[in-house]
Amino acid sequence: MESPLASLLWRSLRVYQVFGANTDVGKTVFATLLGRTARKLWRDEAVTYLKPVSTGPAHEADHCHINRFVPGVAYKTLFQYDIPVSPHKAALASGKPVPSEDALLAKCREYAADCNARRGKGWLFLETAGGVHSPSVSGRTQADLYIPLRIPTVLIGDSRLGGISQTISAFESLLLRGYQVESILLFENARYENHRYLSDYFQEHHRVPVTSAAEPPRKSDDARLDAEAMAEYYDRTGCRETAGSVLEHLRRRHSERIASLESLPEKAHRHIWYPFTQQSLLGPADIMAIDSAHGDHFQTLIPQAATEDAASGKSLLRSSFDGSASWWTQGLGHSNPRLTLAAASAAGRYGHVMFAGAVHEPAMELAETLLQTMGNPRLSRVFYSDNGSTGNEVALKMGLRAARLRYGPDDEQQLGILGLKGGYHGDTLGAMDCAEPCLFNDKVEWYDGKGYWFDYPTVLCSNGEWSVKIDGGGLRAELGDAKRFRSLDEIFDMEAREKRGEHQPYEKHIVDILDRLHKQGRRFGALILEPIVIGAGGMALVDPLFQRTLVNVVRRSTRLFSASSGAASPPPTTGPHDWAGLPVIFDEVFTGLYRLGRRTPSSFLGVHPDISVHAKLLTGGLVPLCATLASESIFDVFSSPDKTDALLHGHSYTAHPVGCQVALESVRAMQAMERRGDWDWAKNQGWTGAGRQEGDNLSEGVWSVWPRDFVESLSRRSQRVDGVWALGSVLAIHLRDGAGTGYSSNAAAGLREALGRGRDEPGVRGPWNVHARVLGNVLYLMTSQTTTESSIRQLTELVEESLAT
Amino acid sequence: MESPLASLLWRSLRVYQVFGANTDVGKTVFATLLGRTARKLWRDEAVTYLKPVSTGPAHEADHCHINRFVPGVAYKTLFQYDIPVSPHKAALASGKPVPSEDALLAKCREYAADCNARRGKGWLFLETAGGVHSPSVSGRTQADLYIPLRIPTVLIGDSRLGGISQTISAFESLLLRGYQVESILLFENARYENHRYLSDYFQEHHRVPVTSAAEPPRKSDDARLDAEAMAEYYDRTGCRETAGSVLEHLRRRHSERIASLESLPEKAHRHIWYPFTQQSLLGPADIMAIDSAHGDHFQTLIPQAATEDAASGKSLLRSSFDGSASWWTQGLGHSNPRLTLAAASAAGRYGHVMFAGAVHEPAMELAETLLQTMGNPRLSRVFYSDNGSTGNEVALKMGLRAARLRYGPDDEQQLGILGLKGGYHGDTLGAMDCAEPCLFNDKVEWYDGKGYWFDYPTVLCSNGEWSVKIDGGGLRAELGDAKRFRSLDEIFDMEAREKRGEHQPYEKHIVDILDRLHKQGRRFGALILEPIVIGAGGMALVDPLFQRTLVNVVRRSTRLFSASSGAASPPPTTGPHDWAGLPVIFDEVFTGLYRLGRRTPSSFLGVHPDISVHAKLLTGGLVPLCATLASESIFDVFSSPDKTDALLHGHSYTAHPVGCQVALESVRAMQAMERRGDWDWAKNQGWTGAGRQEGDNLSEGVWSVWPRDFVESLSRRSQRVDGVWALGSVLAIHLRDGAGTGYSSNAAAGLREALGRGRDEPGVRGPWNVHARVLGNVLYLMTSQTTTESSIRQLTELVEESLAT
Repeated sequence: MESPLASLLWRSLRVYQVFGANTDVGKTVFATLLGRTARKLWRDEAVTYLKPVSTGPAHEADHCHINRFVPGVAYKTLFQYDIPVSPHKAALASGKPVPSEDALLAKCREYAADCNARRGKGWLFLETAGGVHSPSVSGRTQADLYIPLRIPTVLIGDSRLGGISQTISAFESLLLRGYQVESILLFENARYENHRYLSDYFQEHHRVPVTSAAEPPRKSDDARLDAEAMAEYYDRTGCRETAGSVLEHLRRRHSERIASLESLPEKAHRHIWYPFTQQSLLGPADIMAIDSAHGDHFQTLIPQAATEDAASGKSLLRSSFDGSASWWTQGLGHSNPRLTLAAASAAGRYGHVMFAGAVHEPAMELAETLLQTMGNPRLSRVFYSDNGSTGNEVALKMGLRAARLRYGPDDEQQLGILGLKGGYHGDTLGAMDCAEPCLFNDKVEWYDGKGYWFDYPTVLCSNGEWSVKIDGGGLRAELGDAKRFRSLDEIFDMEAREKRGEHQPYEKHIVDILDRLHKQGRRFGALILEPIVIGAGGMALVDPLFQRTLVNVVRRSTRLFSASSGAASPPPTTGPHDWAGLPVIFDEVFTGLYRLGRRTPSSFLGVHPDISVHAKLLTGGLVPLCATLASESIFDVFSSPDKTDALLHGHSYTAHPVGCQVALESVRAMQAMERRGDWDWAKNQGWTGAGRQEGDNLSEGVWSVWPRDFVESLSRRSQRVDGVWALGSVLAIHLRDGAGTGYSSNAAAGLREALGRGRDEPGVRGPWNVHARVLGNVLYLMTSQTTTESSIRQLTELVEESLAT
Repeated sequence: MESPLASLLWRSLRVYQVFGANTDVGKTVFATLLGRTARKLWRDEAVTYLKPVSTGPAHEADHCHINRFVPGVAYKTLFQYDIPVSPHKAALASGKPVPSEDALLAKCREYAADCNARRGKGWLFLETAGGVHSPSVSGRTQADLYIPLRIPTVLIGDSRLGGISQTISAFESLLLRGYQVESILLFENARYENHRYLSDYFQEHHRVPVTSAAEPPRKSDDARLDAEAMAEYYDRTGCRETAGSVLEHLRRRHSERIASLESLPEKAHRHIWYPFTQQSLLGPADIMAIDSAHGDHFQTLIPQAATEDAASGKSLLRSSFDGSASWWTQGLGHSNPRLTLAAASAAGRYGHVMFAGAVHEPAMELAETLLQTMGNPRLSRVFYSDNGSTGNEVALKMGLRAARLRYGPDDEQQLGILGLKGGYHGDTLGAMDCAEPCLFNDKVEWYDGKGYWFDYPTVLCSNGEWSVKIDGGGLRAELGDAKRFRSLDEIFDMEAREKRGEHQPYEKHIVDILDRLHKQGRRFGALILEPIVIGAGGMALVDPLFQRTLVNVVRRSTRLFSASSGAASPPPTTGPHDWAGLPVIFDEVFTGLYRLGRRTPSSFLGVHPDISVHAKLLTGGLVPLCATLASESIFDVFSSPDKTDALLHGHSYTAHPVGCQVALESVRAMQAMERRGDWDWAKNQGWTGAGRQEGDNLSEGVWSVWPRDFVESLSRRSQRVDGVWALGSVLAIHLRDGAGTGYSSNAAAGLREALGRGRDEPGVRGPWNVHARVLGNVLYLMTSQTTTESSIRQLTELVEESLAT
């Protein structure tokens, strides 16, 4: 279910979903009891039932039963199959086309929206079939299928022998999919007394009320007698009181849910201190209240709805495409049950266990999987920490020590790093010190940038043409103007470009600078790069040939990284995987693990780092974890008989099993997608092979989920657009800005707002928009690795429209 | 279940647990089929069944059935109740004492160990009753009860209508409690074909094999005919082949589990880069392989068992008390289902959602809960990050900017921090720079400590006497020798001590130093303290009166923290909660949230920080999360129309919903424990009120889970022990070390090794030891907040014994 779909929340219509802990536990009887009592208590409120899928003529009995006993009711079945088997079998056997999950959910919403619009205040009960995990028509279980609707749940417990277990397990299956079970109802069975046990259990463990009602009369063969007995049952004082109290509770919870959501922005405005946010510019109305998230979409509160008259009946929620992939973290979609279960299984097996001198399976398997995934023969060691910034600090400590020892004990010059202008490696102070002075660190008291940062050529598609642009003043003077290419693919075909000698001016430029720095007596401890894309520093696609050349030059210039300023000292390396020149650190936090379409960005560059840092997508977008991978030659530097020579770094939750297990599941899932060719549709959008000669290996090309035509078409809107690039799941639109570029620019704000207005398709999918983040004059959109072709189509249409306004 | 108990893993005995997806799904038939087939396939292997609890005469049928059809079987029922109702009801109704959970599990282990010793190679099937969550005798559900045994599971699926849902939900309830389901078995029902669906489902989602067998013959009234039919059924080719393949799979998985565990240390030795560890001193044999963890205990592989002959029959696992509370993180015990479910519910509702300018319920509720929990009227803002180190950097950035702006735009002197010698605030470079030069940072290339660090008096019980010791050379000259007190409580009674004027020499000492620093032109940006205990810097209990005095002096010495070196400038504060002098940061990462027995360590000191940092126990010991709390007066410093004035810090997973939800559950659980008086047994161990006058408010006293007598008795072992202190869940034993104290000391290693040898109680609870960490000459033990009195008794005995050797 990847199309946008607003969840089912309105102010006056209370929508509840009825799940059963098992088949035949009394869903219909309880639903009838609730509906009939509601009609009696609040005569002006409508009661409606929606049965998405019904199978078998037997099921018409539910329909008839409710129609008979709930006065003035409306009852709708969306898909009816006469064969009395499970929906997934019935749908197949019917010979009719099986409705897609997307269509089924959209029809549910459409009916509910219609019900809200036409019938106003009241109740809508969505009745599921069988147990929580009984398969629906597509074969997906109901608990998985209905997640996007985010309907609060009434769970009908099982009062029979074994029913305690069934009820708790069903509850847990719902809970771990984000369902809010508001009420548990079950019959009173005098022999098993499940209701007594469950009442205590759910009060203690989940603070969910359990309500019991007398068992209904036994079915009689005489339909008339049966009907009379049931009518008497539904009106019996005890039953009505029970139902009344449950309904009161559900009314209250409905109001509380809305009140809580609506209070969030104001409360946040008062008590949250936001990251990277000037809060004097952020009013409560600017704060997005997120109700939940599924796949690529948040469900967010529509601000204006909050203050409108309830009678307007507008949807309170809208589906917001998570256009920043939640700060570049999402890979497998929000609230993916697979990742939830991975997290839960590790939490259940270990909780967290301390890692110094200890080992557990998730940490070990992840370490092995990562080393193997990178395909980098240099890497043999994995160090865990909690986020990209700490992981980069770990990398830095590794690199600096290695270099320091090679400069020798007599050299006391401070070591800096070599990096790229605009490179950014995190917000902790050590990571900040790896960035050149800029707006991000200008007002950070202890910032003390240490290093030299190179200018570099960037890649952009402008006016429909791909070129490598050379902006940096000095660089331009040396290297000349922009260079045009037929395609992005041609730019990435570095062997061909090297054959043409395009790397030579880069090489000369780099060597000249290193030589000058060496003559000045400067010392460096590491080359640290974000491979391919400078992320936080402005979403710049760096000419990969420049990065490749930089790494190659640094590695062979041992002379320029030695304390003896004179003659070249022999490189003290012994093996082919030892570091040379400087330790090369790739900060792959953003660009690694399929973000750019490949497992590793170094495979584009054809060079391997000595240390690489992985976070964000590492856990598929669920919990923080970072892995810093290093070569044995770096590791050995810290080895000595003295324990204080160790790398004295480590966080309390280092290698926490939950994070490791989730990461393992994520990396494996993404690898399986790659093997299965899940991204073939994207690769087939004009990217790969463009500009190549026949006979080249096309599988090695570049590609993006954003169609090439779309990118090139955007780039032709030259009044607003300076240039565009796309790679893997990333699209970066560089907008024109008279007042200059950079973090303080506002050029992209207009486009961001237009995307934020989105579209409203009332009655069908409900309101929908795109939540995008900007970096100065750049608006970027980033999908997860599971985003579908049809989602991309909707997004590209909206972007085109928004740019046109 | 908090007593040590080694999980059930031996090399030759394969123990499997049989859980049912529901009652009456065929557990006994499948168990019989497996046992009977095993006997036929491997005649030299024993087959044993263990039924921990059986109710009703009906259940004797299972017993009889298995005895009849599995030749040479041994069958044991531990607790038999004749009343045919659920065990929790039957046990109560029996009038006999209800066995404790602890006793029940210990008996299971005892039987299994005996079976392993006497019968050797073969199978032990532990049969549960009813469904996975059916309650056992204590009322706890079986899925929760049997966690500590860590037995791999065979789940019998439900082949009836609704059985798909039942089977998946039951599986999920097991999975989130850390059970490894190795095989799912169910009958082939031609009408529902659940086995087909489930087979695909579990292959795709969990890679667990589903095996089906023909339904057994219908029960006949003629017992003889019935027996013949069942015998024929069990021997039918299809059934036997099915059972044979399942058994082969279970044999393989048993071997693989052991092989995987045994390979972990070697693999880790090759590929893991450990935090804070000199790996040249760490052989594979020194690496602890953790199979799982529950409550206060790890299950760890016993290294020597790995290489011994299988015939020795020794337990492969032992129960290891997590004596460092997994680097000070554990509060609610490992693999606590409550925390797992909290994590899963947030993962299911949101996954992770980006937080800049957005808000979600878990983050907001946690923020409000924390602000309220601290009871600090200064605090109004919550900033989230991922660990204590990053949270301290955030605090530091906050404090430094606030101070810088108050020094004024013309002042360009670098700001340092005021701290305590040995204070340690994390491993990222900015946090490191808050620590004085020491072994932790000596070889960190970019370390650049900025500040002044005070000496301080410490508290220790030596030779049975409590005193405040003044070690620091300069400090001693000024303040004199150690001061004796009747109790720890008296030391913490600061009002009485201030009445006696004990703070005056501290005050004079501090003012003199600040005055001198001010005259030297030094500038400071924050006072940063670990309140009460210096943690990583050596587990020193600081005289609280010194810390209190330090905060008070800094706050009223605005003159000493201004750029104008001359006359006192008026304090630019306006409200009672504004910061004055310097922003005061309490790094409560270690000492906060009940670690020392109270919600906050500042309540001991009677002073409130302007900024406080919380991690570790914040999430009860499950996943990384940090919250930095700040006052509005600090927050306002960053408010301006310029977005670059914002606090430009933020990690990708900032305020990740999983962490926030887990923290919310943890903090609430600990608050509930406090309200319920769960720690009254500990408060009643001679701590609180000792040394106080009558009429004092005893509830304000200090206390520890470690008995006062025990602490004072340890302190009298003066040949080995320099002194001891205990507070809340922490016990610190400072050992004598001829070669000096500090991180490089080895004095505590001997005690650590003795605790690591632990005890072996074969046949009952199995081998048990204590995993302790040392900091130089200090061995500390730290419990969770749920550790029981009886655990403490076992630990104190072992410590006494170990010190005596």
